[in-house]
Amino acid sequence: MNKTTSPDLKSWVNIPGGSDFTIQNLPYGIFKYGTKKPRVGIAIGEHVLDMSFLYKKGYLDNLFLNENVFKSVSLNRFILLGKAYWNLTRNRISELLQEDNTELRNNKEDLKAALIPMVEVEMLMPVQVPNYTDFYSSMEHATNVGKMFRPNGDALLPNWKHLPVGYHGRASSIVVSGTPVQRPKGQTMPEGAEKPLFGPSKLLDFELEMGFIIGRGNEMGTSITTADAENHIFGMLIFNDWSARDIQSWEYVPLGPFLSKNFASSVSPWVVTMDALEPYKCDGPVQDTPILPYLKFDGEKNYDIHLEVYLKTEKGDSTLITESNSKFLYWNIAQQLAHHTVAGCNMQVGDLCASGTISGPTPNSYGSMLELTWRGAKPIVLNDGSERKFLQDGDTVIMKAFCKKGDQRIGFGEVTGKIVPAF
Amino acid sequence: MNKTTSPDLKSWVNIPGGSDFTIQNLPYGIFKYGTKKPRVGIAIGEHVLDMSFLYKKGYLDNLFLNENVFKSVSLNRFILLGKAYWNLTRNRISELLQEDNTELRNNKEDLKAALIPMVEVEMLMPVQVPNYTDFYSSMEHATNVGKMFRPNGDALLPNWKHLPVGYHGRASSIVVSGTPVQRPKGQTMPEGAEKPLFGPSKLLDFELEMGFIIGRGNEMGTSITTADAENHIFGMLIFNDWSARDIQSWEYVPLGPFLSKNFASSVSPWVVTMDALEPYKCDGPVQDTPILPYLKFDGEKNYDIHLEVYLKTEKGDSTLITESNSKFLYWNIAQQLAHHTVAGCNMQVGDLCASGTISGPTPNSYGSMLELTWRGAKPIVLNDGSERKFLQDGDTVIMKAFCKKGDQRIGFGEVTGKIVPAF
Repeated sequence: MNKTTSPDLKSWVNIPGGSDFTIQNLPYGIFKYGTKKPRVGIAIGEHVLDMSFLYKKGYLDNLFLNENVFKSVSLNRFILLGKAYWNLTRNRISELLQEDNTELRNNKEDLKAALIPMVEVEMLMPVQVPNYTDFYSSMEHATNVGKMFRPNGDALLPNWKHLPVGYHGRASSIVVSGTPVQRPKGQTMPEGAEKPLFGPSKLLDFELEMGFIIGRGNEMGTSITTADAENHIFGMLIFNDWSARDIQSWEYVPLGPFLSKNFASSVSPWVVTMDALEPYKCDGPVQDTPILPYLKFDGEKNYDIHLEVYLKTEKGDSTLITESNSKFLYWNIAQQLAHHTVAGCNMQVGDLCASGTISGPTPNSYGSMLELTWRGAKPIVLNDGSERKFLQDGDTVIMKAFCKKGDQRIGFGEVTGKIVPAF
Repeated sequence: MNKTTSPDLKSWVNIPGGSDFTIQNLPYGIFKYGTKKPRVGIAIGEHVLDMSFLYKKGYLDNLFLNENVFKSVSLNRFILLGKAYWNLTRNRISELLQEDNTELRNNKEDLKAALIPMVEVEMLMPVQVPNYTDFYSSMEHATNVGKMFRPNGDALLPNWKHLPVGYHGRASSIVVSGTPVQRPKGQTMPEGAEKPLFGPSKLLDFELEMGFIIGRGNEMGTSITTADAENHIFGMLIFNDWSARDIQSWEYVPLGPFLSKNFASSVSPWVVTMDALEPYKCDGPVQDTPILPYLKFDGEKNYDIHLEVYLKTEKGDSTLITESNSKFLYWNIAQQLAHHTVAGCNMQVGDLCASGTISGPTPNSYGSMLELTWRGAKPIVLNDGSERKFLQDGDTVIMKAFCKKGDQRIGFGEVTGKIVPAF
């Protein structure tokens, strides 16, 4: 086990019980504080560590980095440096924050500038995403959708267990947690209608997903093996793939979802590194259908990440509406990346690949309103007594993700988005 | 009519008969010459005009531009300036090249440095493309595909005449003309097979398309009207959407094409501006099915661009295998852009939207091998006597596009790509 993830590590920074941001985590994000320019930060407890300040003050001198790496509006420059630098930086920050280290702790002036209360910063989009791909890797989700939309056919399509189905999404409309999400307008063809209607979507939904960020690209015409995949991945984040179901069902045949998805997708502001996630690796579901050699893999490639979705009404009442786990994903990220590149597609640093909706095996673990309410047939009852078939204006969707093992915990924080009325 | 497109304009630069690059055209590209850094150029006759050099020498002083606009590896900085600057620059270059203008013409030293023989330069990718969308706007193409793949159903799907079907493509693997295209490997499920096979695609195809480049974006949550669409478009180029049909048919249900397309797409190096294309506007096909108000438009929104595809064998023999025209497109670019943004998707400067395969009404005007050979049932006979059902290793596909009206002509040059064996 990497020493930076050891459960014995303790920090001199106060970290409340149940915090996602323990010293074993050290996720990266981009933040804005006061009138200062955006920069790279690391979450620790209830604070953000200003990496740009640490750099300026010489705390990171041994890393031989360029100043621009941390004085930047995205993590891309840092990610571009490569895995050796990710490790060096992580090791150094871990060291600096450990309880027996006094370098920063005892320098009152630096400490005040370096460690900023999280409540006082604005978190920005962490990564500039050149390309975004969405997979469809939860068997439970694909099965549920199949049952609803093809009641007389096989729930799973013939290709599903042979390859991790995926498609290209829209990178420009990926926004950071907290950004309001405007209800999209578009064409729909309700059952029984004779011609398409136009107006605000009536079946607005979320999709509970995890995404990973490409840390090292590959040349066009080459591919990445499952064994090497992890060397190409920088970290993970929570991903809400907002979906307008009524627009989707009318538009998606034959070329896939388009306007039903590209109005917005939301990500959590903190990117948790693969190093931090290492202790939470686990086996995935048994892949019972033989797969081609390029999709085979060795070892544990799934991640035991507990997922929660809350729906908060305009009045402020919050209800836990589903709990799932990324370990349920049938296709793991190594397989996704091997498949993505097997025909020669070039991945670029900062690319985001999302998992697809992560549904668990039981109805209270489904990852979308579509499944939770079974297309509106079984409305969700919220704590305040109101019901939901799909999302209403004023609703806020809050997704949380964390890993837990005994007393150890690391987490992703949350991704939130409030639905505002169509323009 | 804009004075820069007047058929009466003549240039002091020698422009051979039949040249695409007349003084009425003035398309932009990025070129590399000798050991100099990449920069913006304008094609004129058989030469490239070095915009960075003109800037340095003061020929563009009245435009009040920043040097970096032309000393750049992509057109994006120039495009970002906006339409007023595109017009000013076009007017100035047109003026400088007109036969009665002696400013550059009579300065032998500058002339030699400014006007570089096209054969001596390397053309690079003209635009850094943040997002790429592919439409499916040719009724003939959609009908042909429908007939082949759904012989017992309606050829056109129910949504096709109500909205310009489109989907997100992969931006990272868009390459400039001349880049070799490696035959992709992947999963296929041939008819009668019991399980998927893996190997080089056996049904490699081209798709004859035109693309437009976004010149002005829109904020997320807003949309662009058909009336305003042209103000958001910088120019057009030829687009070859390489497609692996066997990979495509196995993977594309339900989320659309993925690996069958993302291994490579090729663009012509020259971006022809909408100003230059203005005289070639024309009516499109009658849209006989009522459409929603946001898709309605006034005036001529199609373009009369003649399209040709040649297949050149390894031995060098070239055969014209199809002739089509972008005027056949059922959905025009104003409708495509209005649809793309109607749910609030934000377009970004440099985004590329391609038309989808442009097939004409007759079998010799189809825009893909799939249609030309009717899925391999009717092989194409090449000039050297050999036959093709799909593309072979060593084949080069050459697409040309130009507009002609009497003696007037402007063109896009060509986009070429040679198929090299799978790795």
